[in-house]
Amino acid sequence: LARFPFIPREQKFFDFFEVSAQNMVKAAHELRELVYNWENVKQKIDTIAELEHQGDAITHQIIAQLHRTFITPFDREDMCLLARKLDDVTDCIDAAAGAMQIYKVAHPNQKAKDLAKIILQATAEIEKAMPHLRNHSSLKELLPLCVEINRLENAADAVFNIALSELFDDTSDIPYVIKWHEIYNHMERATDKCEDVADVLEGIALKHA
Amino acid sequence: LARFPFIPREQKFFDFFEVSAQNMVKAAHELRELVYNWENVKQKIDTIAELEHQGDAITHQIIAQLHRTFITPFDREDMCLLARKLDDVTDCIDAAAGAMQIYKVAHPNQKAKDLAKIILQATAEIEKAMPHLRNHSSLKELLPLCVEINRLENAADAVFNIALSELFDDTSDIPYVIKWHEIYNHMERATDKCEDVADVLEGIALKHA
Amino acid sequence: LARFPFIPREQKFFDFFEVSAQNMVKAAHELRELVYNWENVKQKIDTIAELEHQGDAITHQIIAQLHRTFITPFDREDMCLLARKLDDVTDCIDAAAGAMQIYKVAHPNQKAKDLAKIILQATAEIEKAMPHLRNHSSLKELLPLCVEINRLENAADAVFNIALSELFDDTSDIPYVIKWHEIYNHMERATDKCEDVADVLEGIALKHA
Repeated sequence: LARFPFIPREQKFFDFFEVSAQNMVKAAHELRELVYNWENVKQKIDTIAELEHQGDAITHQIIAQLHRTFITPFDREDMCLLARKLDDVTDCIDAAAGAMQIYKVAHPNQKAKDLAKIILQATAEIEKAMPHLRNHSSLKELLPLCVEINRLENAADAVFNIALSELFDDTSDIPYVIKWHEIYNHMERATDKCEDVADVLEGIALKHA
Repeated sequence: LARFPFIPREQKFFDFFEVSAQNMVKAAHELRELVYNWENVKQKIDTIAELEHQGDAITHQIIAQLHRTFITPFDREDMCLLARKLDDVTDCIDAAAGAMQIYKVAHPNQKAKDLAKIILQATAEIEKAMPHLRNHSSLKELLPLCVEINRLENAADAVFNIALSELFDDTSDIPYVIKWHEIYNHMERATDKCEDVADVLEGIALKHA
Repeated sequence: LARFPFIPREQKFFDFFEVSAQNMVKAAHELRELVYNWENVKQKIDTIAELEHQGDAITHQIIAQLHRTFITPFDREDMCLLARKLDDVTDCIDAAAGAMQIYKVAHPNQKAKDLAKIILQATAEIEKAMPHLRNHSSLKELLPLCVEINRLENAADAVFNIALSELFDDTSDIPYVIKWHEIYNHMERATDKCEDVADVLEGIALKHA
């Protein structure tokens, strides 16, 4: 160990990233639960808000650790970006759930369910990707996961466009239209941010694999 | 050539950037066509969506090449940023056209035409700028083009503000207001992203000229 | 001095950052004045727009100087980010004021006043932080200021959420709802950008203190 004094620190980074990804998946899972079973709404939204705070704390720890560490397992910029983009996903999930509470919306419709399902799928792929960062020999395993995350983002885009189109087909209740427009936007941005995570992972794989 | 093994790769980057810029100009041209001649709407919007996909593919190729290349003609970060910002312009153009389709809008008004014209002008300046990256001696030629792109962004801002002001002067058709608010936003953001491209180009010129 | 030829340039950077922060505070102060004393509206909004232009010019000077300087007091990326994020705060303040003019809104309500007050507080903390960049021995003084800026951002979030909730409680005047939704968004983003500034400052403190 004395010969590789940086190894413990490296492991710490990978631990942090896995915790951050798990936290994000928990938020995505809770959002899916929320829109599929519109019960105990306040409790579920509070849980997501709490996960968002935990995500902030983890991100903060990663960044502080990066600033204090001289030799990092990958480029400092990539690790910083990875931490922030993971956190952005959780933020968007929280923003979607928060908007449902602020706007006192009623039962989400099928498109909201479809988007929540895709968000959970995309975050689950990211969670699967994280352990592959630990060994240079498994970095190439990241690439097919990144392809799948991109596919899911395209799928979310398609659902989002139909959702908006449907939303504006009936404009008799304009506040409803405005509220769901914003909620859908937050959900779609969550999958955009998953794609950003995939871009960072792909970059790391291409540089080091 | 054997003494400068990186030259062919350098040329490849410049080729990529020029292709990406040309692709962006094609999208801007098609958007201008769309709002000036509101015919074959679906076909024109589909063309822009196709150009957006091609832009994604080119950007992806540039980033992958950057990760695989040890010595790059300019700072890796600047080249990465240039690739992404060029792509952002195309994305905003596609978002504007896509929103017109999703929201089933009718004839665009004069302000939409004015914005589309400015977007085409700003992207054309960027296209003109790209070949100057090939030679350090012509990098200084980038600076007046960047000034012009900034001027066009200010012009777009002014049109955008008047467009919003006019839009809210008559709120009898609120769905119309909401839809065009979003479309104008996408168009204005396209010129913002052109300015971001100009900032990257100016940075490269200042560092290397 | 001849032995440390980079010192004068260092001082120039710190001067620039302080001028940019002061400019941002002036804009925040004018916004607070505007929403608390809804008189001479056009003049106050024009002043903010003018401060936004000056902010652009300062940012431009910092970036140009960074590109021309070989040895910078801190990491070039951090300094570039600091310059841009300071400018983003001013931009959001200007966007909020500009939207009030474009949308011809009447008297701002209490929530707009509360947000403007928090923006002024957060920018004032940033202004206090700037001189600590000049000496490595005082960099640790940045950390409690960053904590306070984060606290203010959370406070702004809470006000923003209540403001949106109240806004949608009465949807009899939908154009009013849409306009203030956007203005509140710009104001909330101003505090987000203050937090981004704090993140950069914290990073510099952790690396160098």
